Amino acid sequence: MTNIEQKVQPATTHFLKNKEKYYQWLSELVAIPSVSFEGFSQEPVYQCALKVADLMKEVGLNHVQILEGENSLRPYIYGERIEDPQKPTVLFYAHYDVQPPGDEALWLSPPFQLQDRNQRLYGRGAADDKGGVLLDLATVDCWVQGSGKLPVNVKVLMEGEEEIGSPGLETFLEKHVELLSSDMIIIPDVENYDQETPGITVSLRGIVPFEVEVQGYKQSLHSGLWSGPLPDPAMSLCQMIASLVDDKGNIALPEILSMVDTQKKSVPPFDAQKFREEAGLLDGVQFRVPENHIKESLWFEPSLTVNAFQASSRQQAGNIICDRAWAKLSIRTVPFMEPQKVFDLVKAHLEKVCPFGLHLSVTSEGFGDWWQTSTDHKAFQAMQDSMKRAWGKDPVLMGCGASIPFVQSFTEALGGVPALLIGVEDAETKAHSENESLSKQGWEKAVVSCIYFLEEVSESFSSKSSSRGDFSS
Amino acid sequence: MTNIEQKVQPATTHFLKNKEKYYQWLSELVAIPSVSFEGFSQEPVYQCALKVADLMKEVGLNHVQILEGENSLRPYIYGERIEDPQKPTVLFYAHYDVQPPGDEALWLSPPFQLQDRNQRLYGRGAADDKGGVLLDLATVDCWVQGSGKLPVNVKVLMEGEEEIGSPGLETFLEKHVELLSSDMIIIPDVENYDQETPGITVSLRGIVPFEVEVQGYKQSLHSGLWSGPLPDPAMSLCQMIASLVDDKGNIALPEILSMVDTQKKSVPPFDAQKFREEAGLLDGVQFRVPENHIKESLWFEPSLTVNAFQASSRQQAGNIICDRAWAKLSIRTVPFMEPQKVFDLVKAHLEKVCPFGLHLSVTSEGFGDWWQTSTDHKAFQAMQDSMKRAWGKDPVLMGCGASIPFVQSFTEALGGVPALLIGVEDAETKAHSENESLSKQGWEKAVVSCIYFLEEVSESFSSKSSSRGDFSS
Repeated sequence: MTNIEQKVQPATTHFLKNKEKYYQWLSELVAIPSVSFEGFSQEPVYQCALKVADLMKEVGLNHVQILEGENSLRPYIYGERIEDPQKPTVLFYAHYDVQPPGDEALWLSPPFQLQDRNQRLYGRGAADDKGGVLLDLATVDCWVQGSGKLPVNVKVLMEGEEEIGSPGLETFLEKHVELLSSDMIIIPDVENYDQETPGITVSLRGIVPFEVEVQGYKQSLHSGLWSGPLPDPAMSLCQMIASLVDDKGNIALPEILSMVDTQKKSVPPFDAQKFREEAGLLDGVQFRVPENHIKESLWFEPSLTVNAFQASSRQQAGNIICDRAWAKLSIRTVPFMEPQKVFDLVKAHLEKVCPFGLHLSVTSEGFGDWWQTSTDHKAFQAMQDSMKRAWGKDPVLMGCGASIPFVQSFTEALGGVPALLIGVEDAETKAHSENESLSKQGWEKAVVSCIYFLEEVSESFSSKSSSRGDFSS
Repeated sequence: MTNIEQKVQPATTHFLKNKEKYYQWLSELVAIPSVSFEGFSQEPVYQCALKVADLMKEVGLNHVQILEGENSLRPYIYGERIEDPQKPTVLFYAHYDVQPPGDEALWLSPPFQLQDRNQRLYGRGAADDKGGVLLDLATVDCWVQGSGKLPVNVKVLMEGEEEIGSPGLETFLEKHVELLSSDMIIIPDVENYDQETPGITVSLRGIVPFEVEVQGYKQSLHSGLWSGPLPDPAMSLCQMIASLVDDKGNIALPEILSMVDTQKKSVPPFDAQKFREEAGLLDGVQFRVPENHIKESLWFEPSLTVNAFQASSRQQAGNIICDRAWAKLSIRTVPFMEPQKVFDLVKAHLEKVCPFGLHLSVTSEGFGDWWQTSTDHKAFQAMQDSMKRAWGKDPVLMGCGASIPFVQSFTEALGGVPALLIGVEDAETKAHSENESLSKQGWEKAVVSCIYFLEEVSESFSSKSSSRGDFSS
């Protein structure tokens, strides 16, 4: 047994003895339908916050407090355990709000009732991100109960509005920057590479969503009595949208593409057939890119999607010229695309191609930043070593095609500290869909990784100076 | 007073004395909500049929009978008055079913309660086509009550399923061709040229409606986790639809255009500004064609319209790649476009351009024939003369951009007899919309026109031979 294994043993032993207690906590958290979406009661969100606060106290965190965010029913919960001001401080984040259950008829067991089937725990939020909440809490509990104290200082922040885009996070961070001050952030809200391989996510795409509407008439018109001399807003919108891409679906605006970082990134080997099955591609449907380029495309290249298009509707389709047509699109962005500039270019293009003087509106309710991190900081090595110990396998340094807009704000607000995006999810998790589930094995390995990680950090950063810079390698 | 005016005087005098009685009948018909659409009770449709049958008897028609169509609750009503087998026979058609009321909140008075405001009668079906039903009945009544008999033989057929596309008409006509045998048909179901100018519609566009769906996935996908390597069915559908037209919105398939009759047709002078106002064009929205070409385009040229497009929906728009996208389109056809060939060409084109092996479905539930008539038959001169007497103005020989698919079947079933499409509607009628109305002045002039018309026919066709051909000039 190495020195580090001896040091973590009390904590890991405590974990092995108490797993069922943690699953019981998860079950209690899942039972509270803390859906943060408008149109759902926000009372359960607040009840869930209270429950999280109780658990924070139970695992030995101090100064546990409920801090108001944008909406007092979706508060932030903060707790800390400062063992020694000279030691480094790790900030654990997670969110306790969840997505709506979706189509309840598609769930094999009730969404808000945690059910164990084949070593997976099914329920809304079981993984995203109540599994993350429990990961943070179990890590602290195992150290405090097993060893009597943590090897580093720990701060924990849980939020209740992540699923609606964390609208209050930036303001909250500004207000509480001193309280949250730390040397690194752990964000357990992404996937592992696969069920057997851990991952650390080192880049996220951003998002520039926008809505387009063209209108020609005060009301829809009978297509027999009017079509021919009059423009057709629905057709015009099809043409305008089609002009944004080439015939392969690649963004066709050179000024947007000129911003993209074209440096080659490393991508691990990859099973295209499995990807096809997970995506649910119908027979014969082809990829847009060569199979060996799929992950590059997904992680590191921009893409444009028509998320929704509506002109009249399938239910009410009649022989009309639609007075207006509307679509929602989004561009997933990568380094170093400037979201405002991307939007301005798209808008200028649509204005240029909008025909017949149709009234055009192009709007966006805000952008999500892309994010990428250097892995030079010692914390990344510490996490890689810890994961290898827990999983028996080196983690993959992954990209992620999705956006977590707050990561950029979070690290910036705390002065550019490293963020470690890790996960309790895997490809089978189906976060946001029906039958969301947590792999027990994956979650347990994630906890053991974090137990090791705190010890690794303690040893890597053995003497803390007053300058944050010293924690970088 | 000319000879013909002397002959019609008893009938026109009867009309002037009995207008209020006819409006009372119209009021009683409008009070029956005879909406033939699925999802509405069909009991009122049948009640309306009984009421029409009663009125047919009251005006002096014989052999009034209720004949089953496709659906026994939407029957055909037939009546006749054969004055002299040697005289020509005029078949009057109309339909007693109506459109749904639409948004009842937009009606200024209850839709099924006829209300007189500023010399217009408001109510669902007041014009389309209970105003037509009354036109037929009043014409017969005035002759029979005023002169004791009609100057020609008259047959009257009223149907109750026109607003749902007359699904049973063709079968019905086949079955009852002998009963309906006549020398010409009067179909009062179109507009006059404007409120002061009568019109005879001599061409109708046809319609080739079709639905297109492309599907790529078993379910919609998170656009962050999947977009880039995967095709986007909603974008592909935009591109496919855009490829059907050029940048001016003209159909871009040369094989379709090669079928179109390019002979120049005559079009009356025309007020483009008024057309703009009636269409409700927003400020600055331009026509697709030069202003002096608007009526040609509308009446005599094909057009393609995207009637509806749906991928996800405005209400539920999320950051997804839609598993599928759907659209309904239609092509308005003109002589000599073959509908099946038009559909086959469109389908073949969409199959050719559908990218990435997306699953494509292109379907149509049937076509509506275009129709055009020569005006050489004496009946047209008779109607023009009659209208000039009633309105003090020559009628316009009009085209109509809309489709009335049964006109072609109707005339064919009766051996190619001429069809006279006239109207009680005008631009203010808003048939199918809320606040449908009938111009009292327009309706009264239409009745007087028809009273004259029967006498004109009687005189133009003074001796009937056994051959139908003799009635053509």
